[in-house]
Amino acid sequence: MHPTVIDTLIEARWIIPVEPSSSILTEHAIAVHQGVIQAILPIPEARSRYQPAHHVALKQHALIPGLINLHTHAAMTLMRGLADDLPLMTWLKQHIWPAEARFVDARFVREGTQLACAEMLKGGITCFNDMYFFPAAAAEVVTACGLRAGIGLVVIDFLSAYASDADDYLAKGLALRDQYPRHPLLTFCLAPHAPYSVSDKTLSKVMTLAEQLELPVHIHVHETQAEIEESLTTHGIRPLMRLQRLGLLGPNLIAAHMVHLNEDEISLFNQYGGHVAHCPTSNLKLASGIAPITTLLQQGVNVGLGTDGAASNNRLDMFEEMRLCALLAKGFSGQADALPAWQALRLATLNGAKALGLEQITGSLVAGKAADIVAVEFSELELSPCYDPVSHLVYTAGREQVTHVWINGQLLLDNKELVTLKESELLSHAAYWQKRLTS
Amino acid sequence: MHPTVIDTLIEARWIIPVEPSSSILTEHAIAVHQGVIQAILPIPEARSRYQPAHHVALKQHALIPGLINLHTHAAMTLMRGLADDLPLMTWLKQHIWPAEARFVDARFVREGTQLACAEMLKGGITCFNDMYFFPAAAAEVVTACGLRAGIGLVVIDFLSAYASDADDYLAKGLALRDQYPRHPLLTFCLAPHAPYSVSDKTLSKVMTLAEQLELPVHIHVHETQAEIEESLTTHGIRPLMRLQRLGLLGPNLIAAHMVHLNEDEISLFNQYGGHVAHCPTSNLKLASGIAPITTLLQQGVNVGLGTDGAASNNRLDMFEEMRLCALLAKGFSGQADALPAWQALRLATLNGAKALGLEQITGSLVAGKAADIVAVEFSELELSPCYDPVSHLVYTAGREQVTHVWINGQLLLDNKELVTLKESELLSHAAYWQKRLTS
Repeated sequence: MHPTVIDTLIEARWIIPVEPSSSILTEHAIAVHQGVIQAILPIPEARSRYQPAHHVALKQHALIPGLINLHTHAAMTLMRGLADDLPLMTWLKQHIWPAEARFVDARFVREGTQLACAEMLKGGITCFNDMYFFPAAAAEVVTACGLRAGIGLVVIDFLSAYASDADDYLAKGLALRDQYPRHPLLTFCLAPHAPYSVSDKTLSKVMTLAEQLELPVHIHVHETQAEIEESLTTHGIRPLMRLQRLGLLGPNLIAAHMVHLNEDEISLFNQYGGHVAHCPTSNLKLASGIAPITTLLQQGVNVGLGTDGAASNNRLDMFEEMRLCALLAKGFSGQADALPAWQALRLATLNGAKALGLEQITGSLVAGKAADIVAVEFSELELSPCYDPVSHLVYTAGREQVTHVWINGQLLLDNKELVTLKESELLSHAAYWQKRLTS
Repeated sequence: MHPTVIDTLIEARWIIPVEPSSSILTEHAIAVHQGVIQAILPIPEARSRYQPAHHVALKQHALIPGLINLHTHAAMTLMRGLADDLPLMTWLKQHIWPAEARFVDARFVREGTQLACAEMLKGGITCFNDMYFFPAAAAEVVTACGLRAGIGLVVIDFLSAYASDADDYLAKGLALRDQYPRHPLLTFCLAPHAPYSVSDKTLSKVMTLAEQLELPVHIHVHETQAEIEESLTTHGIRPLMRLQRLGLLGPNLIAAHMVHLNEDEISLFNQYGGHVAHCPTSNLKLASGIAPITTLLQQGVNVGLGTDGAASNNRLDMFEEMRLCALLAKGFSGQADALPAWQALRLATLNGAKALGLEQITGSLVAGKAADIVAVEFSELELSPCYDPVSHLVYTAGREQVTHVWINGQLLLDNKELVTLKESELLSHAAYWQKRLTS
């Protein structure tokens, strides 16, 4: 039998496919052709069965599915550390929103998103769910540098440099979506900013469009206690109940944060089949609180992980979010077996894919899915000894151990070097915006 | 005037001396001679005033005081990730203690401590407060590779390969101390393991020795709720009150963990002037809880930071502990301005030095103190833009940005390369012990 010609064969010490759960394959290889995983099999068998154009042998590495950042504002990377140690509303109203009003334009979003994409690629993130102004600029960057993204068609009830009112936001968003029909890397979400910044009328329009166009809805929900209290004052009802009343609860909803929830709300949310984007670093940093994800997961809610924007994190680093969510779940529940390492890895991969409706395409290493693959090197003394590579991925490794990233089979990080982005250019953009923002 | 001949001049973009608080010096240099900081001054002035044997220009770096790891079990690095996702007592009784009983000897401690020293140096830790069996092996490693350490003279009321009973532990500890009179790098602490593992009789002896010899006492205290309940059953009193009754509360006490405290205990502890070694990662990972450090700090208690051992962390990484303690303080108190970045840096440096009685020697960059200096590089895109280097040190940077470490003026990490330790040797030791521990 002649060997089959394929694009790429990647051999590794371990493959951690996430599906089936807790499986660790030793000395296996992934065969990739035309962007798709063809097979995962022992190295000797792979070598005899395939004739690859590119052969990558990663002797000290684990291959994992690309990490999925389920909630971020990529362009805000240019505001990394602009204002720290401040509560959410002070931070938003006195620092972030004024800076956005003065400086955010398509160029800001383009250059901020590039910087974010570079940081995310270097840290093993292959897909992100974005929400920001000028989403067309983000879409342009993402397609140019080869990441996968859910682009948020943002809607907010105030004027910005991007759009004049809710209808204008929606019109611009839908026009953008029409520009990329069936794109291999892009999907779109309707992204009403938050219950406190979007009116009932606008949320109803969003709901109608989400149904007609079968789009996910990406929104901040129950991030702070203050949000809930303001809603009680203004609407006489808690935000999640308001979303239910407006018809927005359902399997298309990606609710970011979900920090403050009573038992009824957890079971209501679960009944409707919504998804949670858990952002532990951001929730702590802005003193919003700690989301009850152990309970959410026990009830069967699909929970993914997000970094939030770099203005409130200040890293776009899913290794940090994996470790922190596993640690917090234990510390908060008092159960040290809560959220074990393999489950944290699943949150950061497959669960994110599910929330975005991409579980047939990405989120695990399975034949037939896209080759969204990350290599993590285990040779450094900081990772020695290694009794369990999954434990090490969550509790010990950091993004600095990521060496290679493929998305749709395309090599985008090659031995720690970015292929589609130029670091020196990104650094000079960052310096330019730093100067402007502090002027 | 002729320039003064000195050993080393280190120039940097920023110097963050920790004392005075929130000071950031731009384009300054540190003059070092015979292990001691001579002056910190603007670069042009430094160049004209000094003639250094070694001249190091770090254009994209911040210099900070060496980080002080106030609670660890260095040798346990060989058990990194041996047993995860388990509660403290299961973890100790079913995994760690049996492994220790079978495998721990002087060689284990020597090679484990070497691995820990390498990891700590690469991560900017210049001083650690250790507690483990065979402390003579740890002292030997520390002096050979040039770190600063508080070596714990461990005491526990059970037999080990190291000692037969409490008196034997104490005798061996004191003999070790006598071997290193006035050593420039070593100090010693009496280290009774914990209230639940050391009897009243032994604790009284420790107290007497601590007074006679003026030694700090390093002990685990109130790590878990179960520890407190067991103490109530066995002694009819909570552990901290028991320590008070035995005379152990005082300015020489370094209490590790201190997770579960009522208001009376916090003010009692403060009255006696004790020090807390806060270990946020370990406390979460073992589901012990979250220490009330915002309240402790408000009351004026001196709080430092520790990684605990790599078996419960699983990184000896003070950057992680700084970030996590700042984040938890905010999330737990509901105040986003709780524990700002500059304070987290102080916990990780000067407060640790104070706890060890070393605040005249290390913990800040001040003329007259030892040259324990760490350089952190800010040129990577993950740290761009940079509006505030102190914020970046805590919320954005990682140990992977540490490039240079000096202790007592001796260069021990040179552009990320270890000077006194050989990585290949450490990796082969780790592999050896991994094989044995899983045999």
